[in-house]
Amino acid sequence: MKEKRVIDFRKIEDPSLIKNLSYEELNELSSQLREEIIDKCSINGGHLSSNLGTVELTVALFNSLNLPKDKVIFDVGHQAYTYKLLSGRNLDSLRQKDGIDGFQKKDESKFDCYEAGHSSTSIGAGMGFSLTRDLEGEDYKVVCVVGDASIANGVSFEALNNLNNFKHQLLIILNDNEMSITNPVGGFNKTLQKIRVSRNYVKSKNRYKKIMKRFKFLLPLYRFTSKLKDFIVSLIFKPNFFEYLGVYYYGIVDGHNIKKLTKAINFVKDFDSPVILHVKTKKGKGYKYSEGDKSGKWHSISSFNKETGELVNKKEENKVGFAEIYSSLLDKAMEKDKKIISINPAMSYGSSLDELMKKFPQRALDVGISEEHSLVFASGIASNSFHPYVSVYSTFLQRSYDQISHDVARMDLPVTIMVDHCGLVGRDGETHQGIYDYAYLSSIPNMTITMAKDAKEANRLFNFSLTYSHPLAIRYPVTNVIKQNEIIKNSLTYGQWDILSKDESKNIAVITFGPKVDEIMNKNLNITLVNAIFNYPINNEVLKGLLDYKTIVIYDPYGCENGFANTVSLSLYELGYKGNVRKISLPLEFIKKGSIEEQEKQYKVDLDSLIDTINEVK
Amino acid sequence: MKEKRVIDFRKIEDPSLIKNLSYEELNELSSQLREEIIDKCSINGGHLSSNLGTVELTVALFNSLNLPKDKVIFDVGHQAYTYKLLSGRNLDSLRQKDGIDGFQKKDESKFDCYEAGHSSTSIGAGMGFSLTRDLEGEDYKVVCVVGDASIANGVSFEALNNLNNFKHQLLIILNDNEMSITNPVGGFNKTLQKIRVSRNYVKSKNRYKKIMKRFKFLLPLYRFTSKLKDFIVSLIFKPNFFEYLGVYYYGIVDGHNIKKLTKAINFVKDFDSPVILHVKTKKGKGYKYSEGDKSGKWHSISSFNKETGELVNKKEENKVGFAEIYSSLLDKAMEKDKKIISINPAMSYGSSLDELMKKFPQRALDVGISEEHSLVFASGIASNSFHPYVSVYSTFLQRSYDQISHDVARMDLPVTIMVDHCGLVGRDGETHQGIYDYAYLSSIPNMTITMAKDAKEANRLFNFSLTYSHPLAIRYPVTNVIKQNEIIKNSLTYGQWDILSKDESKNIAVITFGPKVDEIMNKNLNITLVNAIFNYPINNEVLKGLLDYKTIVIYDPYGCENGFANTVSLSLYELGYKGNVRKISLPLEFIKKGSIEEQEKQYKVDLDSLIDTINEVK
Repeated sequence: MKEKRVIDFRKIEDPSLIKNLSYEELNELSSQLREEIIDKCSINGGHLSSNLGTVELTVALFNSLNLPKDKVIFDVGHQAYTYKLLSGRNLDSLRQKDGIDGFQKKDESKFDCYEAGHSSTSIGAGMGFSLTRDLEGEDYKVVCVVGDASIANGVSFEALNNLNNFKHQLLIILNDNEMSITNPVGGFNKTLQKIRVSRNYVKSKNRYKKIMKRFKFLLPLYRFTSKLKDFIVSLIFKPNFFEYLGVYYYGIVDGHNIKKLTKAINFVKDFDSPVILHVKTKKGKGYKYSEGDKSGKWHSISSFNKETGELVNKKEENKVGFAEIYSSLLDKAMEKDKKIISINPAMSYGSSLDELMKKFPQRALDVGISEEHSLVFASGIASNSFHPYVSVYSTFLQRSYDQISHDVARMDLPVTIMVDHCGLVGRDGETHQGIYDYAYLSSIPNMTITMAKDAKEANRLFNFSLTYSHPLAIRYPVTNVIKQNEIIKNSLTYGQWDILSKDESKNIAVITFGPKVDEIMNKNLNITLVNAIFNYPINNEVLKGLLDYKTIVIYDPYGCENGFANTVSLSLYELGYKGNVRKISLPLEFIKKGSIEEQEKQYKVDLDSLIDTINEVK
Repeated sequence: MKEKRVIDFRKIEDPSLIKNLSYEELNELSSQLREEIIDKCSINGGHLSSNLGTVELTVALFNSLNLPKDKVIFDVGHQAYTYKLLSGRNLDSLRQKDGIDGFQKKDESKFDCYEAGHSSTSIGAGMGFSLTRDLEGEDYKVVCVVGDASIANGVSFEALNNLNNFKHQLLIILNDNEMSITNPVGGFNKTLQKIRVSRNYVKSKNRYKKIMKRFKFLLPLYRFTSKLKDFIVSLIFKPNFFEYLGVYYYGIVDGHNIKKLTKAINFVKDFDSPVILHVKTKKGKGYKYSEGDKSGKWHSISSFNKETGELVNKKEENKVGFAEIYSSLLDKAMEKDKKIISINPAMSYGSSLDELMKKFPQRALDVGISEEHSLVFASGIASNSFHPYVSVYSTFLQRSYDQISHDVARMDLPVTIMVDHCGLVGRDGETHQGIYDYAYLSSIPNMTITMAKDAKEANRLFNFSLTYSHPLAIRYPVTNVIKQNEIIKNSLTYGQWDILSKDESKNIAVITFGPKVDEIMNKNLNITLVNAIFNYPINNEVLKGLLDYKTIVIYDPYGCENGFANTVSLSLYELGYKGNVRKISLPLEFIKKGSIEEQEKQYKVDLDSLIDTINEVK
């Protein structure tokens, strides 16, 4: 009797050795990896669901491919935990400062050849690798792993549309979990659904597979290769979306069956043209709380109790996030005014819009991972005398830069952009920081940029937005602030800056905005404190009143120096200010992961650094 | 015998009256309109080819629709000349300052409900109109007219992908001229090709049409409407790309046959869901030089001789554009170095890359109107140790903002962006100005921004780019400069600013860059002239040498004030400069059409304004 080997993923030093394992052993390995992911996510937080969905797929990739010689690019990169574990990394320091990143990172391992964080870039990047590999005459495989929501995006589509004449090996694994972050959106998803249920289709694929296998040996004999292929394909296939784009398609393969996955990958990896391998997985698989989660709660989760599924750090009872504050304000406004529309690109969970969407199914709309479309759609809505509110994270809003400028601001339309996750975002790191938006939004004519300090001010700012008929950005960070139940009816006036405390000796003025304002107030510093609610344009009238101060500190912990800090500085100088200008803000850098507190300390934009500066210049 | 009416398009005051004309008369009308377009384009320049392709289609729209109650959104808007002529505008002042715009413009006519200039926004905007129309309970049609190249773009795709559950009337006319700006690119185009040649498909459409006509009367009787529709559709249709996205498709209709077009539009305009009407047109139709033009020359043309097809204002013999200069440098570099790749998104004609593409078919690639993909693709290429050069107009580069930041700059990759049409662009007006790029590119970490003043400096700057292994933007305006045949081997050093003349009295220093430098030199002004070739980051060492000047003039006629001018100003102040700073640059506005000279004069960034300022501060 053959002795059963003991599998322990921690002891795999050379991942190519897993090729020697039986499928039974690979399944055992997968169970261990899944357990480890749940365990480490429960401690460090992370993208749990997407990673539980790709355990077997990743094991199969190691089983089929020659890694790291072959290149694997995970779209977004937030489903690569198994890949990290098998390539010699551990998740003990996952998403911690200086620890293992939540995404692929080149400086972590030679197994990572590319980096992402935003969706839908893997196919285009993979094409870059494939093309250059062949130009160099090198011999390895390029594989992209992309989810069904990520592939149904404009950036992915532009890449897919360019695959037609792309005669280079490129394996695109469509990791179809029927989920995206929350729920699937769009016609493309319907197409996948049709493919999924068509049994005949799957059968015909098997016939195709057999014919293609024989056909491969004939290949060198024919010069009319591609035409012959096309002909065989046309005989057997019912065409689908991908084939309409001129890309070979193979599937559907059970994404949790390592044997089937290995065989499928082995079969399609040698094609000399791009192939889509359609794999069906379950997001959140193998953990009772995340499996079947449709809310998106388990997509990106903070530390939790493994047994109960409850979050470790619950929000304090009297606190609330700005996303919830604005969602509730939007709710009340939409009740009263039928001309308000809420749009979000796959942000319904992230930006607390789920309830709103249920309540106003015609007017609160999730357009999927379609940041560009969300703003064009909004511009059409606004052009027809409605008022759209577009909710999106700062980092993803970047993708709409052209639409904000060309389609919204150029026609000076009443579109309010709710810029969520402004400022430092913590553990998602450099691909998700919301610290650049001030700089890029202020490069667009007609834009106004704002941030409220607390729930009451948010209410007044929102009231202002209802009556404002031009482009407006309402930014808000991830900070939780004190709840308030009172409904405030008064509004802000355009450009408003408030002077909240006064240093009569005119020694030091601090200009800042956002939730840090109240933190500063609580310190009872002897300063003039200016709350610059309308971050841009600058309120020069208020600045003129500060010109005889000895020192003016511009404190922006939510953005890069070349945003608010430089803009206010220049205004001060141009108004003739001769005193000391001290800027406390983030450098123009991509700031790596860590807790927000750590990032603030590292870059000296925390409250203590402000106080140090104040003491220094006193 | 019925007397023949005399048709004269100039006398049509109410365009709804054309509904009373016979098809013969409408054809006569079309001939006149076509003649007028050729005539006025020959004088004013304009998008000739696309407009010649849509004459009959536009006549049919007026014949079928209730304009301006119904809304027509032309994608890009550069095919709306017939629409303008029939809605009471004339083309005498086409593209002139304060004249009729080359695109749709709301303030020109109540027939224009939306504006564009960049491609692929019409479907998303049309969705905004359709949704809000139905929410208001209003009764009119929304029609988008979109070309085959524009629809194969990420922004369009995101809209198409959102049509699946969009139960609102929206007619999308796919104006398929098999051309795009130059040649069609991509798998999507191949799909259209397949549809075009499939006769059976067209026949089955006719059967569908008949059934649908009968079916419409039955509609109110059934509650399972959409399912019944789906069933009928599935019986008759071979699915195509659009149906995979869940959108009804009807076609192909001859886009120059007004009768067929009218009938088709009448049939599909009442559908309560989005429909694609596929219309086949010929770009450039009816003018011997533009018909069949595959180069893209006639897409956007300046004034020409109607009889000979020759351009009126030819380039002076000894002059050359920067696009040609850089294309030729790229050519020589690609000959030597196999690791250089040239990428352009549908810019092969615009950026003089046609010859390069012929010479290096594997390495000089047009990816179609896919600005986002062009940068992601480049980032994959650069990640694999190649050096991509991406050529794109400044205004279209906006669409790649996220990719420049997230995919190129964040990984600090050696991607050189050739930013064409920087600065004022003249008659294309506010949607095409290249004056914002400095501001948005300088909001991205790791970016370096440059502009050369002449052919020699361009050569040295290009040499620098070959050895530079970080993100680099080489901007260039539409200015023609003196040719130089000498091949220059030396390079620039990073950050280089040259002091070209010296005012020994340290009275006035002018900091500028680009082709204006030589124009200033030629005026022999008694100033210190600084050529800031590396526009960003700022060369503080050079600035330090200027701190004892009485006046420093920052002259940037290529960008908005919040770009170079503000950046240099702030640096001067922060270095302790106490003299006068004078900024001569464009305001942060959307600058309307006119000649570049007119725009420069209007905004006081012309050379005379510089000289006035110099005289004023002397």
